[in-house]
Amino acid sequence: RRLLPLFLGLFQGALLLFFALFVTYDEPSAQAEDANLVANKVYSTFPFFQDIQVMLVVGLGLLLTFLPRYGLSALTHNFLLLNFSMQWALVLLGLLHHFHHGQVQLDLHKLLISVFAAVTVLISVGAILGRTSPCQLLVLATCEIPIYLASEWVIINCLGVLDVGGTITIHVFSCYFGLGVSKALFRVGQQPPHPKETPTPRSDIMSLVGMLILWVFWPSFVAVLCQPGDAQHRAILNTLLAMSASVITTTVASSLLEREGKLSPSHLQNGSLAGGVVIGAVADMAMPPVAALVLGSLSALVCVLGFRFLTPLLGRKLALLDQCGIHNLHGLPGILGAVASAVVVLVAYKDTSGSHFSQQALCQAGGLAVAVGVSLLGGLLTGAALRLPCLAQPPERLCLDDSLYFKIQDQEESPGLGSALEEGALALKE
Amino acid sequence: RRLLPLFLGLFQGALLLFFALFVTYDEPSAQAEDANLVANKVYSTFPFFQDIQVMLVVGLGLLLTFLPRYGLSALTHNFLLLNFSMQWALVLLGLLHHFHHGQVQLDLHKLLISVFAAVTVLISVGAILGRTSPCQLLVLATCEIPIYLASEWVIINCLGVLDVGGTITIHVFSCYFGLGVSKALFRVGQQPPHPKETPTPRSDIMSLVGMLILWVFWPSFVAVLCQPGDAQHRAILNTLLAMSASVITTTVASSLLEREGKLSPSHLQNGSLAGGVVIGAVADMAMPPVAALVLGSLSALVCVLGFRFLTPLLGRKLALLDQCGIHNLHGLPGILGAVASAVVVLVAYKDTSGSHFSQQALCQAGGLAVAVGVSLLGGLLTGAALRLPCLAQPPERLCLDDSLYFKIQDQEESPGLGSALEEGALALKE
Amino acid sequence: RRLLPLFLGLFQGALLLFFALFVTYDEPSAQAEDANLVANKVYSTFPFFQDIQVMLVVGLGLLLTFLPRYGLSALTHNFLLLNFSMQWALVLLGLLHHFHHGQVQLDLHKLLISVFAAVTVLISVGAILGRTSPCQLLVLATCEIPIYLASEWVIINCLGVLDVGGTITIHVFSCYFGLGVSKALFRVGQQPPHPKETPTPRSDIMSLVGMLILWVFWPSFVAVLCQPGDAQHRAILNTLLAMSASVITTTVASSLLEREGKLSPSHLQNGSLAGGVVIGAVADMAMPPVAALVLGSLSALVCVLGFRFLTPLLGRKLALLDQCGIHNLHGLPGILGAVASAVVVLVAYKDTSGSHFSQQALCQAGGLAVAVGVSLLGGLLTGAALRLPCLAQPPERLCLDDSLYFKIQDQEESPGLGSALEEGALALKE
Repeated sequence: RRLLPLFLGLFQGALLLFFALFVTYDEPSAQAEDANLVANKVYSTFPFFQDIQVMLVVGLGLLLTFLPRYGLSALTHNFLLLNFSMQWALVLLGLLHHFHHGQVQLDLHKLLISVFAAVTVLISVGAILGRTSPCQLLVLATCEIPIYLASEWVIINCLGVLDVGGTITIHVFSCYFGLGVSKALFRVGQQPPHPKETPTPRSDIMSLVGMLILWVFWPSFVAVLCQPGDAQHRAILNTLLAMSASVITTTVASSLLEREGKLSPSHLQNGSLAGGVVIGAVADMAMPPVAALVLGSLSALVCVLGFRFLTPLLGRKLALLDQCGIHNLHGLPGILGAVASAVVVLVAYKDTSGSHFSQQALCQAGGLAVAVGVSLLGGLLTGAALRLPCLAQPPERLCLDDSLYFKIQDQEESPGLGSALEEGALALKE
Repeated sequence: RRLLPLFLGLFQGALLLFFALFVTYDEPSAQAEDANLVANKVYSTFPFFQDIQVMLVVGLGLLLTFLPRYGLSALTHNFLLLNFSMQWALVLLGLLHHFHHGQVQLDLHKLLISVFAAVTVLISVGAILGRTSPCQLLVLATCEIPIYLASEWVIINCLGVLDVGGTITIHVFSCYFGLGVSKALFRVGQQPPHPKETPTPRSDIMSLVGMLILWVFWPSFVAVLCQPGDAQHRAILNTLLAMSASVITTTVASSLLEREGKLSPSHLQNGSLAGGVVIGAVADMAMPPVAALVLGSLSALVCVLGFRFLTPLLGRKLALLDQCGIHNLHGLPGILGAVASAVVVLVAYKDTSGSHFSQQALCQAGGLAVAVGVSLLGGLLTGAALRLPCLAQPPERLCLDDSLYFKIQDQEESPGLGSALEEGALALKE
Repeated sequence: RRLLPLFLGLFQGALLLFFALFVTYDEPSAQAEDANLVANKVYSTFPFFQDIQVMLVVGLGLLLTFLPRYGLSALTHNFLLLNFSMQWALVLLGLLHHFHHGQVQLDLHKLLISVFAAVTVLISVGAILGRTSPCQLLVLATCEIPIYLASEWVIINCLGVLDVGGTITIHVFSCYFGLGVSKALFRVGQQPPHPKETPTPRSDIMSLVGMLILWVFWPSFVAVLCQPGDAQHRAILNTLLAMSASVITTTVASSLLEREGKLSPSHLQNGSLAGGVVIGAVADMAMPPVAALVLGSLSALVCVLGFRFLTPLLGRKLALLDQCGIHNLHGLPGILGAVASAVVVLVAYKDTSGSHFSQQALCQAGGLAVAVGVSLLGGLLTGAALRLPCLAQPPERLCLDDSLYFKIQDQEESPGLGSALEEGALALKE
């Protein structure tokens, strides 16, 4: 119980030391022209940055509150992990930079890169949501961030993969990392469903609102790192088209797969976002708008099919726990997006200079392989580390409940209940 | 039950075909100067676009969750209709453009225009919220979008009506379209209130949050299509003033009309937004700030009075169902705004060149008449079409309930209930 | 019961009169260059303005919904007070301006300044949340706004205090004003905790979402009035760093102070924001990034310690009611920020020209003293005025309940309850 504050306290001490020694701000620009440039840079990046923060802090947090008695924990752990991972990525990136170039000059762009790194952690923990202690989550983040940075460096800098929206580097990586952790951490066979696992209408609505917030701001996430101008404009449009197509396809697929044509809230909560995952790798490429629509539809389809068939199958055959279904939202659409990026590179650019682009298509495939391989391996090792007894994994029957980690008054939940019961009892006696 | 996926699937096929044949992106700009221009255009439009998306997806969605057992459906249908209508408007606008100019070049502005068209559908369905099948809603959207585009073309392009914030073209039109549909669809006499119709404190809070989100971002909706610079600045300020005045007046009016000076949540949820509806037609005109305040106050007053007196009256006399009270929020303030725009044109510009502006004032009135007439007629016809048996209108007793269209676990709602009851029973036995 | 509409109605009449007589818009700029300038000004201010509106209307509103049966009132009163106070500040600032320069030209910047003034009211009422009538709140706002404007004028214009994010002028001032009101209004000794005071998990989640929204958009609040360019960039970064450090420290401190290492929701709801309060006075100063982290950590620490030890102590010794703990979130971190600003001025600028900067450091301390003194005095007097019987303070037992001011159907809260009870009773009989 004392491990969490100890761990975080030590980390924060190290963070302060690192910042005190190595991190400064840019010198203020002496000339008015430069100041104007800085101002324009702030105005062009900051709104995107805020949108992404809203997505991660409010949108993703709410999306995770579909477990009816685990809302406080889901929101808080997501928020804590975002901040911890962002700071940890800042330290690691700063150290790397320091060894090459000396003093680190902090700016909004570096913070943004760190936030992108933190996203991988937030996605990965979706696989094991509700069944781990906060300490385990922090150790997971501690392991995942450096592995992500290494994998991202290999994929982008060595292989030269094109992936402006993080389809391969973020979504595919974090999905298989999370599944690796889950596999290594929960080795037992399949268990009966936990009684607190079933969403209520109210928790489904909260989660749906989270999805809607993510849906609205997703174009900012895909487009923030694009070249300003045409490429960014196209990235925004492609994302909007893909995500809009996803919504329609999700409704069709869910309605066909469920009994009596009803819709499943979990399909909607995830399928509507699949278009945003798939489009990341190709958003700024020279492809016609119809390609974005097709990719959005296909990704929603594989996502819903994944929920309906693949997740139960993986649960049965591999005893794999994937609480939020990250494989359906990030894994399958991510792979689809990686394949699509190779195809688009081959098709769209083929008339300009063939050989170069078939090489680029190979690179895209290579990047996908690196992301899957590194993340699975890293995830399995991390998951094994999380089994350390000192990390205090909660027993199954206490899982998925806020009261384990929060000081709350549970009996206050239905205020009118006590008196109503009393009245009912009185009526019976009479 | 199979009609919904069939309908949506066919539509999506047609959409893909249309995009594949006719829609492209702009050629990337070769020169650095042009690229800069595109970047600036994105930076100046995209934040407004995002604000509007938040309004429609999150704000309006939550505003509609005041029905306590219909929250999932309200959020989801609103979201689905937005996407469907936007795509459908994109197709229709694209076809029109194609016949005149050939290839359609997609950009953010065209998407924005399509989103504006979709808004009319989202408003209209407020009249019949909770009592229709998703299929009926999609057919409604299919009919309303082309009628709206025609009406908007007549009002803006033929009559030259000034209406930058859509008071006449969007709010008045969609209100009377919705009422027309409602009248034609529900022909029976007045019915007793449905037991699931009464908001709970919790659903009232959700709806209030939706109103607050709409209130905050409304200036973006009014100002996005204004001339950048002074006109846009003035449109933002006028909207802020009008909506701020609405809040005060709504409180006064609601407190005077309800017993014991209490406030009615539904008055607050709607009256506070009336200023945004009324100001659309005059937001960028040369009028003094006090006019915005007066219009905001008046619109909130007619909105609250409408809820208190007109809606019950229409229900009794015309057997007209208006579940969300769209006539009070969009109809009455919209008409007020249209009249105000004629007055402002007459008064504010009279010293420059009289005759021209009295003609313009007539145009404003003419635009209002066209909007009301076309929408009522179109709505009545559409409502008659919605009575087709194959559209599967739900029977009254199953209405207003999420379980009709969603796979949910209703009994999980009050998790402590079962055990509390058991304990109560045990205590009684002893 | 009729006082509220009377008061608001009279105010709105006065507002209209004032606007009709004295307020206009700028003449539209004749030259294209000027129009471009206005457009750029709108684009650079409006997104910040919207962020701040979201913070105050949605974020702060939700943060106050932690009282489980007072959510509607908390949201609505916050919203009403924001609008009333903003308009009242606009009138007062306009009158001041009018006497010096004639006609008032309204622009976005003047609205922003008025919104900042309104923030003080929204913070102050946190001390007495749930135990006052709307009339009392409006009288409080009527008194606080002019006192704030005077205090702010003395602190910024006379003393030349540096306080770009309002740490001293807004947070410290409004905290002690609110505590003064609370002390003068509730003179009785300590009372047993009110039964409706304890948050439920659900109301804690709502409040947490409010905190998250405030957390995300806080950088806009701190940086909006900064010099565009480097200073604004640095203010954004410093705020992000401080608030990120606050989150980690809050978790550590809460976990150490609560039994079994659990986290307290109220610590999280407030401690995570302390970094935003503390950083306001120093955000744009030339200090290294590590200083922002240290200040963020320290402020979260004093905030959590305040909740754990100081609030109960003040309640016992001074019979001081501080319902939201504004002293912990705004008072203590605000004082810390003021002291920090003096230290930073002394240390960071000492090599340039010593004497001038030691004088500036004294000014910062003087500003703090003025803020505390004026606000306490003003608050005590205002609180005494609120005791007027005509203001209809609600009796203690009716407090903290929405049904006092809203027309709601309370029994609808748990819809399945009635039938479940009946079934239980039936089962018992058999």
